[in-house]
Amino acid sequence: MKILTPATSANLGPGFDTLGLAIKLYNEVVITKQNFRSVCINGEGSDKIGLKKNNTFILIFNEILSQLTGEQMEFRFNFTNNIPFSRGLGSSSSVIVAAIASAYHMAGFKVDKSVVLNKALKYESHPDNISPAVWGGFTTNLVHNGAVYTQRAQLGDELRAVVVIPDKPMSTKQSRNKLPKSYNMIDTVNNVSHASYLTACFLKKDYLSLKIACIDKMHEDYRMPLLPELYDVRKIAYENGSLMSTLSGSGSTFFNLVYRDDAKKIADVLKQSFPNFRVEIYEFDNNGFEIVQS
Amino acid sequence: MKILTPATSANLGPGFDTLGLAIKLYNEVVITKQNFRSVCINGEGSDKIGLKKNNTFILIFNEILSQLTGEQMEFRFNFTNNIPFSRGLGSSSSVIVAAIASAYHMAGFKVDKSVVLNKALKYESHPDNISPAVWGGFTTNLVHNGAVYTQRAQLGDELRAVVVIPDKPMSTKQSRNKLPKSYNMIDTVNNVSHASYLTACFLKKDYLSLKIACIDKMHEDYRMPLLPELYDVRKIAYENGSLMSTLSGSGSTFFNLVYRDDAKKIADVLKQSFPNFRVEIYEFDNNGFEIVQS
Repeated sequence: MKILTPATSANLGPGFDTLGLAIKLYNEVVITKQNFRSVCINGEGSDKIGLKKNNTFILIFNEILSQLTGEQMEFRFNFTNNIPFSRGLGSSSSVIVAAIASAYHMAGFKVDKSVVLNKALKYESHPDNISPAVWGGFTTNLVHNGAVYTQRAQLGDELRAVVVIPDKPMSTKQSRNKLPKSYNMIDTVNNVSHASYLTACFLKKDYLSLKIACIDKMHEDYRMPLLPELYDVRKIAYENGSLMSTLSGSGSTFFNLVYRDDAKKIADVLKQSFPNFRVEIYEFDNNGFEIVQS
Repeated sequence: MKILTPATSANLGPGFDTLGLAIKLYNEVVITKQNFRSVCINGEGSDKIGLKKNNTFILIFNEILSQLTGEQMEFRFNFTNNIPFSRGLGSSSSVIVAAIASAYHMAGFKVDKSVVLNKALKYESHPDNISPAVWGGFTTNLVHNGAVYTQRAQLGDELRAVVVIPDKPMSTKQSRNKLPKSYNMIDTVNNVSHASYLTACFLKKDYLSLKIACIDKMHEDYRMPLLPELYDVRKIAYENGSLMSTLSGSGSTFFNLVYRDDAKKIADVLKQSFPNFRVEIYEFDNNGFEIVQS
């Protein structure tokens, strides 16, 4: 079998642990039944020898598979990792979602997206990356009694992501430790009101109002000082027509949503201004993970 | 001139200071130019002698009128107040919005709804009542640099409000003093995620998902113990088919959104269970304030 799982950008401005969207940048896994285990890694992580032994995908895949079949089986795993590690583009969520979906498929079960999403929540407690990796598009999510509830919006082909990937990672854990334990009334209302408004903008395709909605008081100003150039990334992106500019996940990537026709110009200016950072243009994914070959 | 301004239900579950909607229950004001001031109050407040002398509507109306015209003029004001006072149904916001709109009209200016809304924010700093009083329907709102930004959704005729109005008021100010100074991460994320999801439910007309979205951690559990019967109101409303049950504004009214066909049954059960409370069924307003007679 072969499965593709998209990169995702979560937190989305004021939508901390809530809002996310899927990007046409895919991790690919090919799994073949055989009598002994073998692992091949291409792309991200191919230089990390430990990843073949201690591999999160394989751990989760085997756990789910043995839950479903009661058996231990061996496979050849061929990974092509295109999503950068530890950059806030949902590489871990992509691994978790793909591992669960693949295990269902290889066990001969129907792959139900809701089941995959709720299983994934056990490995990744925040729904804003796993949900768009499962459903695609823009999603708003809440967790109730251990289950994820999602509302979706399609992302039109008139839009592009301009993604600025710094040369340094930000550890999610370290980055989360920077956050305060509590928020005052003003900051809390800021995020409740801006995240709700931002959700309405995506559902109504009112992309010109995204910028006013994209103001966060919960995490960006605690994390971005770790890499202060990101403030300049945002300033330059907005000056050149970005519709929305926000820390992607817990960083270090900065995500810009732009009109297709402005994408090249914005990307070129950002490349010139930040020669050490990778700047890429991607389309949006509206499908979530897909098993493209049985 | 004659102006009608709707009642509103704000806060809406997790949408603290953010979400509101308009109800077909109107305060009416008739204003006629004459050589001396006279005031007539019918309905709510007609028994309060002080309201004729110290009247918020007239204070704001005169302030705006003199800003616009540089003149002091006298009028006959005839108020018919149908929105209960201090019950969380937006009676103050209705007064503020109506006073500003009337002043523009009587000064001979075009009544621009955005202008009325932003002027109203100077008298009422939270946008969630004034915005639906201006635009009607369901609104999600944020405040940025002293201006209100709104996204709207229409409320269909298949819906009704079943409103439970206790015999006791709750003072907004006293009720606000009960709130904590800060919120922990879990409660903050709860409201960000639920308010965003709730907004999506209204925009997508997915009313069956409102209940799961309608969980608040910012104000209800600090205010409702002032009137603990409200917990039973919610329980009974949900048991009988309410789609969404929440404290209206800062109380004391409890707001239930229901399907039209269930409204009578739900209202009857609530009347039986709470004989001291008023229980009313209203349609929703999708227009906001209207000048119905020049």
